[in-house]
Amino acid sequence: MNKVFFILMVIGVPLSVIGGFFDWNFILMFFIYCMTIISLANYIRRSTECLAVVVGETAGGLLNATFGNAAEIIIAFFALREGLNTVVISSITGMVLVNLLFAGGLSMLIGGLRFKKQEFDVFKARHNTGLLMFGIVVTFVLPFIFVSRIDKTDIKILSTAFAIVMLIIYLLALFFKLVTHKSVFTGKKGEDGEEEEPEWGKWKAMIILGLATVVLAYVSEKLVGTIEPVGNTLGWSDVFIGIIVVAVVGSAAEYVSSISMAYKNRMDVMLEISIGSTVQTAMFVAPILVLVSWFFNFLPLVFNTSELVAMILAAFMTVTIVNDGDSNWFEGALLVGTYIAMGFGFYLL
Amino acid sequence: MNKVFFILMVIGVPLSVIGGFFDWNFILMFFIYCMTIISLANYIRRSTECLAVVVGETAGGLLNATFGNAAEIIIAFFALREGLNTVVISSITGMVLVNLLFAGGLSMLIGGLRFKKQEFDVFKARHNTGLLMFGIVVTFVLPFIFVSRIDKTDIKILSTAFAIVMLIIYLLALFFKLVTHKSVFTGKKGEDGEEEEPEWGKWKAMIILGLATVVLAYVSEKLVGTIEPVGNTLGWSDVFIGIIVVAVVGSAAEYVSSISMAYKNRMDVMLEISIGSTVQTAMFVAPILVLVSWFFNFLPLVFNTSELVAMILAAFMTVTIVNDGDSNWFEGALLVGTYIAMGFGFYLL
Amino acid sequence: MNKVFFILMVIGVPLSVIGGFFDWNFILMFFIYCMTIISLANYIRRSTECLAVVVGETAGGLLNATFGNAAEIIIAFFALREGLNTVVISSITGMVLVNLLFAGGLSMLIGGLRFKKQEFDVFKARHNTGLLMFGIVVTFVLPFIFVSRIDKTDIKILSTAFAIVMLIIYLLALFFKLVTHKSVFTGKKGEDGEEEEPEWGKWKAMIILGLATVVLAYVSEKLVGTIEPVGNTLGWSDVFIGIIVVAVVGSAAEYVSSISMAYKNRMDVMLEISIGSTVQTAMFVAPILVLVSWFFNFLPLVFNTSELVAMILAAFMTVTIVNDGDSNWFEGALLVGTYIAMGFGFYLL
Repeated sequence: MNKVFFILMVIGVPLSVIGGFFDWNFILMFFIYCMTIISLANYIRRSTECLAVVVGETAGGLLNATFGNAAEIIIAFFALREGLNTVVISSITGMVLVNLLFAGGLSMLIGGLRFKKQEFDVFKARHNTGLLMFGIVVTFVLPFIFVSRIDKTDIKILSTAFAIVMLIIYLLALFFKLVTHKSVFTGKKGEDGEEEEPEWGKWKAMIILGLATVVLAYVSEKLVGTIEPVGNTLGWSDVFIGIIVVAVVGSAAEYVSSISMAYKNRMDVMLEISIGSTVQTAMFVAPILVLVSWFFNFLPLVFNTSELVAMILAAFMTVTIVNDGDSNWFEGALLVGTYIAMGFGFYLL
Repeated sequence: MNKVFFILMVIGVPLSVIGGFFDWNFILMFFIYCMTIISLANYIRRSTECLAVVVGETAGGLLNATFGNAAEIIIAFFALREGLNTVVISSITGMVLVNLLFAGGLSMLIGGLRFKKQEFDVFKARHNTGLLMFGIVVTFVLPFIFVSRIDKTDIKILSTAFAIVMLIIYLLALFFKLVTHKSVFTGKKGEDGEEEEPEWGKWKAMIILGLATVVLAYVSEKLVGTIEPVGNTLGWSDVFIGIIVVAVVGSAAEYVSSISMAYKNRMDVMLEISIGSTVQTAMFVAPILVLVSWFFNFLPLVFNTSELVAMILAAFMTVTIVNDGDSNWFEGALLVGTYIAMGFGFYLL
Repeated sequence: MNKVFFILMVIGVPLSVIGGFFDWNFILMFFIYCMTIISLANYIRRSTECLAVVVGETAGGLLNATFGNAAEIIIAFFALREGLNTVVISSITGMVLVNLLFAGGLSMLIGGLRFKKQEFDVFKARHNTGLLMFGIVVTFVLPFIFVSRIDKTDIKILSTAFAIVMLIIYLLALFFKLVTHKSVFTGKKGEDGEEEEPEWGKWKAMIILGLATVVLAYVSEKLVGTIEPVGNTLGWSDVFIGIIVVAVVGSAAEYVSSISMAYKNRMDVMLEISIGSTVQTAMFVAPILVLVSWFFNFLPLVFNTSELVAMILAAFMTVTIVNDGDSNWFEGALLVGTYIAMGFGFYLL
């Protein structure tokens, strides 16, 4: 799989630069940029993981928790700068739905076709689903219920206050996981993971991380510039582009590794990626974007009802399915089926 | 109990024919039709069960899953043909509420008065509650959140797409239960059930099934014809009639067997009837009616807010109560109490 | 801790009388009344507990269940008489939020800082969370979904009917807990509690209970009289006063004992106080107030959307966290974090 990303990158990066320079057709460039970002996000992810192994578990967990969604944050940053707030909001919805229903469901489905029943550690899973409920409740539902009844300046204050509460809780969650209750979480991980050597050495990983981030930022900026003309030409709405571009492009690398973990029956890691990544979106990426948006157009975290209900349902389905400590192909199919039905609804909006 | 149904049928069928022929008072006929349908639905149910034993578990499960709600589908079919869409939609709400809260709750209450604590297989129960959540979420909530924001032709497409997704998932659920994970489900059933002989032989069951279905169709058509004049005369709204006529009349037979199972402390079978039947309503009956309605007035699956919230609450209460693997009289009383409160609300609407 | 309450009472009661007599500044008096009520509520609580031990478990449970929220009921009674319905409705919201999120969360947080993992009896906890879901669903959500669609006289009938259903279920819950399934509930309580002597003898407790109740009623009436001028002067809305005055003042005594129980690792008692007290609010206090309000301005149990959703979220978070049978500091922090975010939202409303 890593070879595919290597080829995508080797082709994508030069094409992005050359095409941007010679003003190639913007629809062609849009797809080249997407492909390139997918490959670069994979390199960022892998170099982060290598560094995480090198610096030890605590700092490594912190590193994963902050750099894991680097690609999404970078793309969203440029979209914010361009004033594409609807795109950013929809991309958050997209990340939640795709992570939980599509990536999570497909992983359970594919894993379940190979193994009759796949078990995972309920304690860790429940820690994550607890955070998931909390993240979605406070970051997404609370602003929704208050926002319609207060005036504009107060919305800014309220959104900012929620973002800060959320970041504090996110830090506390890391502290809980990496410091006070470390033993509970590392028990099994150690078993699975200790034998694995990091793919790259410390310095190589740092250089790759730095380079990939810089190039990703360059390509993201270009990509965001093509969103509006592409949307107008192909007749795609901002919501649709938000769900596709930032959500899928930014985290495609994670979906691949989530599925491959399920295929290897390492369900704890799979859930950590799929649910953990959604928690990061709600509790880290979204609040960071709110704070960053102070410098551009302020981004209040207010979703429309369809998006909000879809996210709540996705979280609720995941909690219900994860709660019994095992999964099978049918539970995966349920999630994917829900995703397809929702996707169809959003497409028609 | 079967004797009661026999007497009801022996009196009801001739009265239905004669009364219809001589144009007796329509309110009288309305009640005669209801009584007759209740008795015939019982015969359809029993003959289906006999055939299910004869043809083997897999085909039998399929048979139960499709013919189990034959009476509801037949009545709804004639109501659709008459353009009584509100009645059909309300009858779906009614089936969900009555099955989960009233029949389920009354079973737990009566069973719990006899046994201090009634246990059931959590694995099977959770498979059913998982399906229940999914069915209610996708069939009922998703259309609701999208429908208000899209135009009329798209509603038709969306409802149809949801119905198809639902039917596919329903078939997958049967495949899961009857083929790939058969052993998990039949473990205990075999224990309870194998000693039981089918009530009727193969041919007798088939003849009874055929006859009862034909007569039920005849009476249902007559019944539907009386709905509007009865409603006007007695001052009952379409919603109220929907919840009473199709919901209660069509599945009264199931309520009786659900309660009798709880009384015998066979809680797995009781839950299978009560929750399984609701799942069938959401994932099989409702989608089938949407597809069938293409031939008459199209029936979009759009409930009003009260109906929708009532169904969600009913599902949620059931999941909460079933989740711990046992039931007692008080949990039953809770469900029945919720049903009474809701019924009162709908009555005042 | 009891000393603090003693001092508060010894200072507060005379000051309340004297200040009321000499017409001291009403803002000063407002705070004196609050302080006095907090101390008197503590005496009511303690004398009730003593009597509960003396009269035996069944009658004692009944006594706790009815007198436990005496302070809230008395204050709300005078607020109703003054026509301050918004204050009463908000105070119910406040009691739910403060009990579940703030008191419950702070208890888990403080207890969790001392003990790595605090376990509790899942059976009892689930009985309480089941009641909690039911109470919130029927008392709060059902009126909401029906009320917007029916006319004014029917709202009165509906609210009354719901209140009666609720009180019946509450009595059944007591019957379940104190009679039919007594053994399940008293198992552990006996262990912890039997060695404890009641603080006061029977007669002393009865005299204290009587005196404290009378004085509390006197001070409550005075307090309610200052609500409107204080609100106007300090710019506090009725909602804000409702959440502060009745909710926090009326049950401050309980929060203190809930936290101290968690500190002693007696989590069953802590949950009994925190969740049990919320259940009492929903299933006993709220219905009683509806019935009592027949004599003044009728109080329909209709919350605004923000209040309703906040209560549902609070209940849902609690259920999720309690469901696994143990708690830790981070789960407590989650609840407190949610409370802070909500509090901020209500403050800005």
